[in-house]
Order: sequence, then structure tokens, then C-alpha cells
Amino acid sequence: SRSYTITLLPGDGIGPEVISVAKSVLSLAASLEQISLQFDEHPVGGAAIDLTGAPLPAETLAAAKRSDAVLLGAIGGYKWDTNEKHLKPETGLLQLRSGLGVFANLRPAVVLPQLVDSSTLKREVAEGVDIMVVRELTGGIYFGSPRGFRKDDKGEDFGFNTEVYSGSEIDRIARIAFEVARKRRGKLCSVDKANVLESSMLWRKRVSAIAAEFPDVELSHMYVDNAAMQLIRDPKQFDTIVTNNIFGDILSDEASMLTGSIGMLPSASVGESGPGLFEPIHGSAPDIAGQDKANPLATVLSAAMLLRYALGEEAAARRIEDAVVATLDMGFRTGDIFSAGTTFVGCKRMGEEVLKSV
Amino acid sequence: SRSYTITLLPGDGIGPEVISVAKSVLSLAASLEQISLQFDEHPVGGAAIDLTGAPLPAETLAAAKRSDAVLLGAIGGYKWDTNEKHLKPETGLLQLRSGLGVFANLRPAVVLPQLVDSSTLKREVAEGVDIMVVRELTGGIYFGSPRGFRKDDKGEDFGFNTEVYSGSEIDRIARIAFEVARKRRGKLCSVDKANVLESSMLWRKRVSAIAAEFPDVELSHMYVDNAAMQLIRDPKQFDTIVTNNIFGDILSDEASMLTGSIGMLPSASVGESGPGLFEPIHGSAPDIAGQDKANPLATVLSAAMLLRYALGEEAAARRIEDAVVATLDMGFRTGDIFSAGTTFVGCKRMGEEVLKSV
Ligand SMILES: CC(C)[C@H](C(=O)O)[C@@H](O)C(=O)O
Ligand SMILES: CC(C)[C@H](C(=O)O)[C@@H](O)C(=O)O
Repeated sequence: SRSYTITLLPGDGIGPEVISVAKSVLSLAASLEQISLQFDEHPVGGAAIDLTGAPLPAETLAAAKRSDAVLLGAIGGYKWDTNEKHLKPETGLLQLRSGLGVFANLRPAVVLPQLVDSSTLKREVAEGVDIMVVRELTGGIYFGSPRGFRKDDKGEDFGFNTEVYSGSEIDRIARIAFEVARKRRGKLCSVDKANVLESSMLWRKRVSAIAAEFPDVELSHMYVDNAAMQLIRDPKQFDTIVTNNIFGDILSDEASMLTGSIGMLPSASVGESGPGLFEPIHGSAPDIAGQDKANPLATVLSAAMLLRYALGEEAAARRIEDAVVATLDMGFRTGDIFSAGTTFVGCKRMGEEVLKSV
Repeated sequence: SRSYTITLLPGDGIGPEVISVAKSVLSLAASLEQISLQFDEHPVGGAAIDLTGAPLPAETLAAAKRSDAVLLGAIGGYKWDTNEKHLKPETGLLQLRSGLGVFANLRPAVVLPQLVDSSTLKREVAEGVDIMVVRELTGGIYFGSPRGFRKDDKGEDFGFNTEVYSGSEIDRIARIAFEVARKRRGKLCSVDKANVLESSMLWRKRVSAIAAEFPDVELSHMYVDNAAMQLIRDPKQFDTIVTNNIFGDILSDEASMLTGSIGMLPSASVGESGPGLFEPIHGSAPDIAGQDKANPLATVLSAAMLLRYALGEEAAARRIEDAVVATLDMGFRTGDIFSAGTTFVGCKRMGEEVLKSV
């Protein structure tokens, strides 16, 4: 029988609650498919800072690296917001992404028929939206150097960062995006600011060159400001979007909010080889942490992505995805997606209902 | 009688058509208020490249500088899209902003009651949205150095840009934003990525310090990815937003698309002193250029902002704004804002109808 080790990183806020639900669902789906899973839990983010003094303890990264895949809850909270950079929860997450080399972040934004009314968009605009944002995750302004603070000779303070991409960094994320687009509806939109930024000019040039390897995919280019508008004007024009780290941060969140149900959205981050990182796109929601109010479905669906992309266990992945749909069809809703006529449940209960359908 | 010189920069695409309408409206409103206006027209953008070989001819900048205010149409078009950077229309616009020192870009995003159905947002979400984005316009990654391309010793290509802000650049845009917020509903949201970027950490620190000068304004901070979501989830939570050049480029376009009628939205760019730059937020729309289809109202409303902010001519500004509202109330609509039951008109005719109400 197939056997895998999964690193669980609950993190902060609602992280532990949603990871606990996802773990049960993952275990059941795996055992029903004769897969044996070992779980290995470690601290990250604020929890790790409090426990060890570092947002990504060496042991956490080492455990993640030797496992088959990593499932993360969420990181961050008011408590650590004013910490210095090397003691911020976010720094731990960035170190984890970089340490695992997961340069490709896949963020689906799908409007489920059951939840179309959660969107603030008109029904006819929201219905059928199905976008995949492929965000470059280990380069660009998040990691570029030089960065920091300096004073000039007049005593003036400066804060600065470097947006930088190499050709090969662009090529590898472009190839992943073309492959994703090929398995979807065959349309890839590359988003940049090539009318102003040199880093974007290189981006556009390299993505255009890689297109020759994928004659079956239709490539287009769009400026980031226009993309921010088009997502609202007519989101259905998009299939797959590929963009850099910072534009991807902004646009993938924008795209996900079009669905009105960010508590439902998973993400996968993968590299050339080695374990992938799977996490819900929502944050740690410290205001509702520990109150059994969180929606665990984004993490549950992230576990499904883990089974599919990291372990190649399609049948188990399907079990989970189908169970989520069945649970929604039965009318169960956490607070964030509740509407009149549905059944209001907490985080745990939602998990129990999903388990019944796995 | 008061007398002013206005530099008109029609630019490219639909630029000349909308400027021509705005000029007539401006002339009439001025003369009815005993203001004498001299117009001085110059090429910029693609038109200037074709005519003189440069996107911002020295004469155009000199004329703009010695005038009292500048009214711009739009720049850019497919024809020049693949030009090298120094021969791009966009470069001319950036040189103009920088040359005039207009570091504060004010972009209102208002949902007019007459046009609420143009929005792709549900009526109850869109109704009453009234946001002012204050975007830093002459700094950040648009202008930071070093920038460009390089090869490393392995022959790998890199494209790079520098996001950089000085404390005083942040202070001056923050002060303008607090002043704007004070005249509006007294709420300012500063948007940054201070959980990751040093340039944003300095931004947050300086904006927070300037807040002490404006105890009557309520300041909050938001990460840019969250802002991109919140604008869609609940745009009415925002009054005034202040942010850097690139985030402002993206978020102001996102905010404007919430209204569903970007053909209606003006903008003003101002500095410490010297002439301000006024322009519609829409682009040059090369696909409909020269066909009398463009909506001239964004440029007409930019002319009203010019009267108010650059010349202090409030009465004339009001005349124009009231005339636009009256024209909409009478049901006249260009294609971009047309809906059943209204009267479809072209660019020129829309101008004539506004003139009747000035
Ligand atoms: C927490 C933060 C560092 C992170 C990012 O900016 O990448 C988050 O916003 C995300 O998108 O996963
Ligand atoms: C044309 C382009 C250079 C410009 C910008 O990015 O500033 C435009 O998008 C704008 O927002 O006015």
C-alpha cells in the first residue's frame, strides 16, 4: 500500500481549527483508498515565534523538506503585527515558500453554483466564473535585493525594494502556466506592467517566447491596471492568468473575492521537485479564532489539491471534492457563506458533515 | 477680469475628440463666469512621436509649465506598443507628470444614482459608493533607480526596477491625502504591503506620524491584497485611500471599474505649486477613435476639476458638474453607459447637450 508523510503546519488564529478538520477528512479519504498517511505537526508563524523565537524554526523547515507534502493553516495576528521583520509571522511563510522552492502558486477562483449569491457581483456576471491564477511565488519584489532602509547625507530616510526577475525564473513559471492552461480551457493571459517597468518587459518577452512550445494555448497580454478592471467588468473572459509575485498577490485576492466565498478557496504551491505547499487563501482571522466559527472547507479543498498534485492520488482527491459539494448541496453553511434557507453550522460540525460524505 | 492660460494636450486615439468637447464646455462655463481663457494646444504621446520623434517634446513641457493648468486627453495606441521605452507614448506621460512635479493624483470613483445599473456589482453594493483614491504619482517603482536590464557571468538575463520612497515624499502625499479626507467624510485608509516590503514599512511609519497633524481624520492601514478584496466585498467602507504609485495604479482602476462607468471619471494631479494636470482616467481607446463614439464626460469633468483645483473657480466648476448631471437626467447616454430607455448619442452630440445646460 502507498504510504506518505504529510507535514501539518496549523500556524495561527483559525489555523489549528481548520487543520484539525482537514486532517480528519484527509485521513478518512486516504484510508478508504488504501493509502497510509503519517502526520507530522510543527509550529510556524506567530505560534513558532512564541514557542521558539523564530517564525520558521529550522526543525519545521527540515521536517517539511523530508515529507511528501505540506498542509498549512494560516499565519499572522495582531499580536505580532508590530514585530521587526525577522520576527514577523509573514517572514516565516516567505522562508517556507523559498526554502521549499515552491515557485508556482496555483489559486483557483471558482464560483460554485450553490454559492453564486455570496458574490457581490450580479448573478449573470458571477455565474460560471472559473479562473486559475498562476502566481510566481519565490521571486520578484518579495525577495529581490538590495532592499532595506538608508539615510542620505542630508539625513533623509529611504525605504527600498528591488523587483527583479531572471529569464529562467520567468521561463519556468510560464511553462507551468501554459501546462495548467492546456489542461483547462486553453487560454492564458499574462499580466504585467511592460509599458513602464523593465522587469515586466523581460517578463513579456520571455513568456511570449515560451508560447512557441505550446501552440495549442492561446496567449494574450494585459497590463495589471487593466486586469484589475477587467476582473470586475467581465471575469468570464479569463481562463488562466500568469503573473509575478506582487501582482499575483493582489489579483489573486481580487479574483477570489469575486466569488464572494474566500472561505472556500484552496491553493497549491509547487516547485520543480520536492514537497508542495498547500494552504487556504484566507488569512488567520484572529477575530474569530478559537470560536468554532471558521469555514474549514478551503483547507479541506487544499488537502484535496495535495492529494492530486503532490501525491498523484486522484481518487482520494475526488472523494474529498465530491464530499464538499455534497455537503453544500445538503445545505450546510458556516457563517461566512450563510444565507436564508440554509443550515448554519460551526467549523467542527461542517467537518463532521463532510466526513459523512467522503 | 480673471485670465488664465490652459495647455490642451489632446494626445492619441479618442483624445482629440474628447478634448474638443471639453474645450467648448470649458470656454462657455468660463465666459459665463467672466473668466477669460487662452488655450494653447500641443502634441504629446504617440502623436508627438510621429510629429517630432519624442513622446514629450521640450516645447510641450515648456508650454505646460508656463500655463496655469494642463488638460490632457489620452495617450497610447497599438501603433507604438512595441516601441523602445524612450519612444513609448507612456514615457511621455511619465515625463510630463515628473516634469510638472504633480506628485498627488486624485481619482474619484463615484457611482452616480443615474448610472448605478452600469456597475457589475449588485445595486445594494454599488449604490452610494464614493471613494477618492490619492495616488502618489512621481515616485516609487515608476521612477526608482537603478532600473534596466543586465546579464550575469553565466549569460542569464535580468530585468529589474527599484521601489523606493523617501520620508519626505511620503509626508507630502500623506498631508494632501489627510487634507482631502478632512474635506470629505474624515476617513483615510493608507494601503501598503508593510508585512513584506521595507518601502511600505517606511510608508506606514511616516503616514502614521503625519496623522498627528490631523486629529480630526480617522486613519487606518490595510495591506494591498486585502484592499483589492475589500473594494469588491464592501466598497462603501472606504472614504479616502492613499497609496503608492503602483498600488494606486491598480487600486484606482479597480475602484473606478466598480462604478461601471469609467467613461465618466476624471482625475487631477497636483504638486506643491505650479500647474496641475487634469485627465480622464480612461485610455485612448484606439478601437473607437475617430468614430464619434467616445464618452467625453470624463474629460468634461476633468475640466471642472481643473477650474476648481487649479484656478480656484468654484462657480464655473459647479456649472460644468451640474450641466453633466442635468444631461444625464435628461437621459442622454453614449454607448458605454447606454441602457434601455435612454437616448443614445455620440461624442459630439453629448457635448452639445452639456453645453445647453452649462
Ligand atoms: C501573508 C503574506 C506574506 C502573503 C503574501 O503576500 O504572499 C499572503 O498575502 C498570501 O498571498 O499568501
Ligand atoms: C499609461 C500608464 C503609464 C499610466 C500609469 O501607469 O500611470 C496609466 O495607467 C494611468 O494610470 O494613468
